Order: sequence, then structure tokens, then C-alpha cells
Amino acid sequence: MFSKQTYTNRRNQLRAQFKSGILLFIGNDESGMNYEDNTYRFRQDSSFLYYFGINRPGLYAIMDIESGHDYVYGDDLTIDSIVWMGSQPTIHEMAAGFGVENTGPLSSFYQKVKTYPLASVHYLPPYRPEHFLKLMDIFGISKQEASARASVPFITAVAEQRNVKTDEEVEEIDHAVSITAEMHMAAMRYALPGMTEAQVAARIYEVALAAGGDISFPIIATINGQTLHNHYHGNTISEGQLFLVDAGYETPKGYAGDMSSTFPVGRTFTERQKEIYQITLAAHNGAIDKLKPGIHFRDVHLHAARIIFDGLKNMGFAKGNTDDAIANGAHALFFPCGVGHLMGLDVHDMENLGEQYVGYCGAPKSTQFGLKSLRLARPLKPGFVVTIEPGIYFIPELIDLWQQNGTNRDYINFDRVNEYRHFGGIRNEEDVLVTPTGHRVLGKPLAKTVEEVEALRAEAFF
Amino acid sequence: MFSKQTYTNRRNQLRAQFKSGILLFIGNDESGMNYEDNTYRFRQDSSFLYYFGINRPGLYAIMDIESGHDYVYGDDLTIDSIVWMGSQPTIHEMAAGFGVENTGPLSSFYQKVKTYPLASVHYLPPYRPEHFLKLMDIFGISKQEASARASVPFITAVAEQRNVKTDEEVEEIDHAVSITAEMHMAAMRYALPGMTEAQVAARIYEVALAAGGDISFPIIATINGQTLHNHYHGNTISEGQLFLVDAGYETPKGYAGDMSSTFPVGRTFTERQKEIYQITLAAHNGAIDKLKPGIHFRDVHLHAARIIFDGLKNMGFAKGNTDDAIANGAHALFFPCGVGHLMGLDVHDMENLGEQYVGYCGAPKSTQFGLKSLRLARPLKPGFVVTIEPGIYFIPELIDLWQQNGTNRDYINFDRVNEYRHFGGIRNEEDVLVTPTGHRVLGKPLAKTVEEVEALRAEAFF
Repeated sequence: MFSKQTYTNRRNQLRAQFKSGILLFIGNDESGMNYEDNTYRFRQDSSFLYYFGINRPGLYAIMDIESGHDYVYGDDLTIDSIVWMGSQPTIHEMAAGFGVENTGPLSSFYQKVKTYPLASVHYLPPYRPEHFLKLMDIFGISKQEASARASVPFITAVAEQRNVKTDEEVEEIDHAVSITAEMHMAAMRYALPGMTEAQVAARIYEVALAAGGDISFPIIATINGQTLHNHYHGNTISEGQLFLVDAGYETPKGYAGDMSSTFPVGRTFTERQKEIYQITLAAHNGAIDKLKPGIHFRDVHLHAARIIFDGLKNMGFAKGNTDDAIANGAHALFFPCGVGHLMGLDVHDMENLGEQYVGYCGAPKSTQFGLKSLRLARPLKPGFVVTIEPGIYFIPELIDLWQQNGTNRDYINFDRVNEYRHFGGIRNEEDVLVTPTGHRVLGKPLAKTVEEVEALRAEAFF
Repeated sequence: MFSKQTYTNRRNQLRAQFKSGILLFIGNDESGMNYEDNTYRFRQDSSFLYYFGINRPGLYAIMDIESGHDYVYGDDLTIDSIVWMGSQPTIHEMAAGFGVENTGPLSSFYQKVKTYPLASVHYLPPYRPEHFLKLMDIFGISKQEASARASVPFITAVAEQRNVKTDEEVEEIDHAVSITAEMHMAAMRYALPGMTEAQVAARIYEVALAAGGDISFPIIATINGQTLHNHYHGNTISEGQLFLVDAGYETPKGYAGDMSSTFPVGRTFTERQKEIYQITLAAHNGAIDKLKPGIHFRDVHLHAARIIFDGLKNMGFAKGNTDDAIANGAHALFFPCGVGHLMGLDVHDMENLGEQYVGYCGAPKSTQFGLKSLRLARPLKPGFVVTIEPGIYFIPELIDLWQQNGTNRDYINFDRVNEYRHFGGIRNEEDVLVTPTGHRVLGKPLAKTVEEVEALRAEAFF
């Protein structure tokens, strides 16, 4: 936890955005897996963590704007529970540590919250089924109403505040990224032909847990890097294949790291792999170079797209005028996703608040394939933390779809592309802070160049 | 997956218990952590897995008793999703693999289910918030009604069927237990003074993931074994302490292992630790020896309690007539939990269906401290798989509570007990199949004797 003052300051800054009403924070509950008491690891709601700090299930908090009072509600352990769970600080003791003196049991919360007219209650969008049940129960509204009544002023105020990371947050994220780099480099030092993907994923997970935190999102560790949402770890890996890892650490305070790396299952890249890898890396480094206050993130994305398209054009996969091709989204055959996203207490920071508010300032998103997957498209400010993660993917299903439909046939040499249809995918990803004068890549350096990656791979074969 | 015939047989056996109506199976959804799309690992509902096999979120299944037809409903991936997730079998292809030919999209499910009067719809108790939301939405009922309307005949039929494991299930559980034993022995070979509990927990988790499955419940890896529900891993471990591990493997098919072990953080047990360890182990082995068809599991529990009480009486912690002490629950100061539970597709098998039906055949549970924590109290049958896990714990909060209240003061020497108030806790746990003639301990042998444990500890210090 940060100091009490940090949390008090955060609440005061938020409070100043409102004139009346209350801000209601719904903490997360434990989530049962195959029965109620067999739970996944507990993850507190990030905005609850940000403003109230308490990492415990079953809580509510209220900020009463007019009175200026903040409240935390939750039930203390019974003596029976203490026998099973050991002594624990009370809700009051915990809340006081985050600067909140007004606390009470859940029964008081239900009484208290009903004293406010529903129209004066601001809450953030529900995203877990338990949030819907709670809102439906407290206010007697339907599931649809529970969604529709989420407060846009509350969302906007939280998004603008959390988007700008303070120095102590940056320090925490820096640590998360350093452990993240260790997770990736442990995989590079460990993976050998004949292992399963699961063995490599397990080694990555071990590094995260041993550091005292957890993973910030499900690990991708795969020889099928072209399948972007792929958590299958059942394949045995062999010489000649590429191995793509996308994994991040979450600190005990809840801050995320998020990196991707791609290495050969063999000791060295093949010439073919090296050629594509160099293009991806150039796009990656080129995008990072662009980062500074005021630059529009869509331009960073398009800059990476251009490097990728030009590189692939040089290799004969693409053709035509690059600007026209980019405008038509032709690069998205190889690079169908966004160049990066905001990161903080959530790996996709505040995705639960809605991309249109957090990443787009309310502006509309493009509907073009490729651009529509860009999660962030606004001018950057100092204190923003973003990932940079362009990639090149040969996705057989997408190649076939475009070829059948003739999509962007003026810009794509499908015959050449089909020679690489089983190539796989390559992505590099780092996390970058926008500073007042430019940017700073966070965390320990991750092996990125062909030489750096091959040096670590040599250790696996030693 | 097992053969198509296995699932068809299971459904036919279940169907034979009913004359009319439908059996509705609600599959589990993905569970979002800090936003909807950042999910915990997917875990299918165990009864859905047992009867329909499909390990995918967002499904429903219906068994129409009168027509004899079974149905699986879910939405296939769109071409957009296939680009991100790769090609996947269709719902129809998956269902056919488990012997179900009737499939449809979710829209068909909603139409279909509404053709049945609510009174004829049997469903199992909801245990995740999404189950409540679905039942409320489908049937227009309240959360309370959704709970109250769970079908006791359905619960009972499933419990009786799933309680008796078939040979192919036993083989699967045997494998789960073998990996579980490897997880524990990896910890014994690894832990060293100066490490954190998290480092040891990480090593245990790695073994589970590397084997291609996951953990069957959150890992306990602690120097505070006396705190029974303890998932804190933040302590640094030191020479002289005991380290208690309770952890299990879950196979990709969903079957659980569950073992506990206790080892010294140093190379060898202290004399004091050895003395208590031998009593726990005697209770453990004594309880296993009792297992056979027909024996009442409460008697197995009380047998272990007696060995523990007598052992501690010999050491001066307890006094008085053992039978009277046990009848008064005096052993529960040291052994406050049950001696074991059923295990199968859930580590506490079918806990979501309700202990009173699964473990008690509807008979009432004791309200006595200690006995009320026993999850299973019925005569055992061949094919039952149970854990055996007596333990001895010195719980400071409980010692103080009993001493203040004078609880069982005729049977406890509190002064002597207080000399050990910082001793910690010891538990051994194995998984046992009840066979037609007796029992069989499942899986690879886990190091249990002082000598076996110390031999593995020596490897850590090598």
C-alpha cells in the first residue's frame, strides 16, 4: 500500500469533480470456480483499490460529495472465522490505514445507501455478474438498468485521473515490468525442443508467483503466435518453430506489467524467421521513438503499420503505394490488432470503464478491420503508460478469407503470402511511460535483438 | 475425454431416475477478474462435464425425460472470432463427440426451455452469480426463488451416481494423485531457509501446470499450518519451523487430487516436532486402515480423533477418559476439522450440490464444534474416493477462547498446551478408493514417515 495521504489525495481530487450526490464503489467478491468456496485468487476491483486500497472481498465504499465524508462498509470476521483464518485487522483498522474513519457493517451500508435518491448515486459500470446482482438488489432495478445507469461523469473523472500515473505508481509499474522481463527471459533460458508449451508456461508462471505477486492476465505461450487469443498449451514444441510469449506480472498492489517476446525453439532463428523478426522489431522501435506528449496514438499505430507494410513489400508480400494501402487497411492482413494500449492497475487499463471514455475521450472508433482493434486513440499526456506491441502474423483463416473476397487485392500478393501461411507470428512488446519531454521504456531491458535473444537461447541448450 | 459411450451411459443412468420433466444443465461462463475479458482460467461446471463432457463456456444442456432426447445449446464462433482464436470445432461437432446429436444456438435454447412449465424443470443449485442471473432471466424469478427451486430429486440422483467412481474415473484420479504427490515432493526437495512461502508455492504450481492441468484448489504453503484456511504466502521461512503444504492437481478432464504434507524447514525435524508428527501419522494411517465398504465415515473420523487424543494425553496435553473426552469434543481443540471428504471431479466432490445430500444422505449434521466441520458422514460404498487428513494444530486464538470459557477443562491441560502455543500445525493427507474388499491408497506414494520426509529434505540441502 502507498501512504494514507496518497489515498486521501486521490479521493479529494476525485471529489473536486463533483458538486453533489454520492460516488458508490462496489468491491469485488470471491469468485467460486466449481463450487462457491473453491475460489479463484481474489482480485479487488481496480478503482476500489485505487481510491480505498483495501484488498479484501465483500466491501462497499461511499463518497458523499456534499458532506465530504467517505465510508467503507464490510463485515468483520467472527470468532469462528478467526479460528480458521487467524487474526485479521478489522474493517475499521484497515480503512483507517487508507484515511477513512467512517466504517460499518454491511447492514449499515444497505440502510445508508437507501437514504440517497437513486438519481444522485453515481456508480461505475458493472462487469462481474455479482455486480449486477448487487445493483439489482440494492436499487430494485433490472440487469439492463444496472448497466444503463452507470455514471458517465464518474467514468470520465476516474479515467482522466487514473490515466496519469504519479511517480510512486510509475515506480510500482517499473517493478512489475522488471519481473515481467524476468518471466520472459526465464522462458528463453528454459524452453527446449520436446517440451510442451505448458512446461514453458509453467516456468513463466513460477517466476511471477515466486516474486510474491501473480500474473496480470492469462499467459500466452505458444508455437501458434498467429492465433492472437490463444491460451492452449498442449503442443509439443520442436526445432524450427517460433515460440511467442505474451505474459505480465501483477504486483501485490495490483499494478501490471505486459510484455511479449518471440524466440526460436531451436538455438537460433532461421534466416526466414530473422527477416520477418527484423521488420517487427523495426516497427516496435519505430513506434516507441514516436512517443511524446501530444502525439496522437493513432499516428503511432499507423507509423508501425507503415514500417510493417514497407518491410513486407520489400519481401514481396505486399505491393502498391504504402499510404493508399494503409488507408485501405491492407497492413491488417499481417497486423490486425492495435499497436498498444494503456496500462496501470489493469493490464488494459480501465477496460471495464469503456474504451470510448478511457482511450478515445468519447470520440468514435474506426470500424475498419485492424483499426477497430486499437484500444487507444487520443493525444498522449505525460504520465500515460502504454504498451507498444506491433506484430506480424500469418493467419491462414484470414489469408483465405481475404483471398476469397478479393480484399485489398491491389496491395497483397496472395501467392507469396501463401508460401508463408504456416510461418506463425512474431510480436515484441514493451511498456513505456510518456514523460514531459518524451518517453522512457520501463523495467529491466528485455532481450529484443536477434543477438540478445539468441544469447539467452544458448543458455537453454548449454 | 472418455468415450462417447461413457457419456451416453451416464445420461441414461440418470434419465432412469426420472419419469417426466426436463433436466436443465447450466454450463459455466468465463469469469472476468478486473474487467470482463481478463478472465480467470475457465472451469466448466462439474456435472456438465460429467454428463456432457464439453469444456467450453456459454453452454446449456437439456435432457427431456419423456422424449428421451438430449440437447446441447451454444453459439458457434463467428469468422471474426476464428481470426483471433483459430479454427475450432462447432458446437455440433463437439456435442456429437459426447453422443449428443441435437444442438442449436442460444436463441433456440431460450425458445425451447420456455416451452416447458417451470414446475417440470429440474436444475441443480446455482453457485456462481452468473447462474443466478441466468435463472432469473430465463424463468423471470427472484434470486431467492432461483435458489429455492433447485431440484432435490436431481441433486440426489446426481450425487448417488457421481459418488461411485467407475474404473476409468479411478484411473484418472489415480493420475491426478500421482501428479499431486510430485507437487509435494518437489516442495520438499526445493524449500530452503531464507526463501519465501511464495517461492515454494510457485514451485508447486509449476509442477501442476507443467503436467498440462492446473491446481484443483488454491495452494496452501505455509509456516502457519495451524491457520487452516490460509493462503498467505508472504513469510520468509526459517530453520526450526514446520512447513505445511495442502495442494492438489486437476487433470485436463477435471478430476482432482488433494494431498497434504508437513516437513521441517530445516534438514530434519526437531525432537518436539517429531513427537507430534508421529501422532498425526498414526491417526492418518489408523483412519486409512478402517476404510472398507459399510463403515460409517463418522466412525473413521472418531477413530482418528481417539488416536490424536490418546497421543496428546500421553504427552500431557490432555487428560481424563478418552471416550468421554471425544464425546464432549475435547479433541477438537487440536483437531477441529473433519478427517476427510469425498473427492472426484471436485476436490470437495459436489460441494455445490449441498453436503447434506452428498455426504449425509439427508441426515442432520452434528452442531458440535469439530464434528460440524465433517463433510462426510455416511456408510461408505465401493467406488467412493475419500481423502484422509487428520491433523494436530495449536491454534492460539482457539486455545485462548477455550481457556477463557473453561471449555472442556476436565480434558485439557491448558498450561501444558500453552507451552506449545507457537508450535504450528501438522497434517498428512492422502486419497483413498473404497474397494469391494477394503481400500486402496491412490497415486504414487507420498513421503510420509519421518525418515522418508527427511530423505527428501536432504536433497534440498545437497
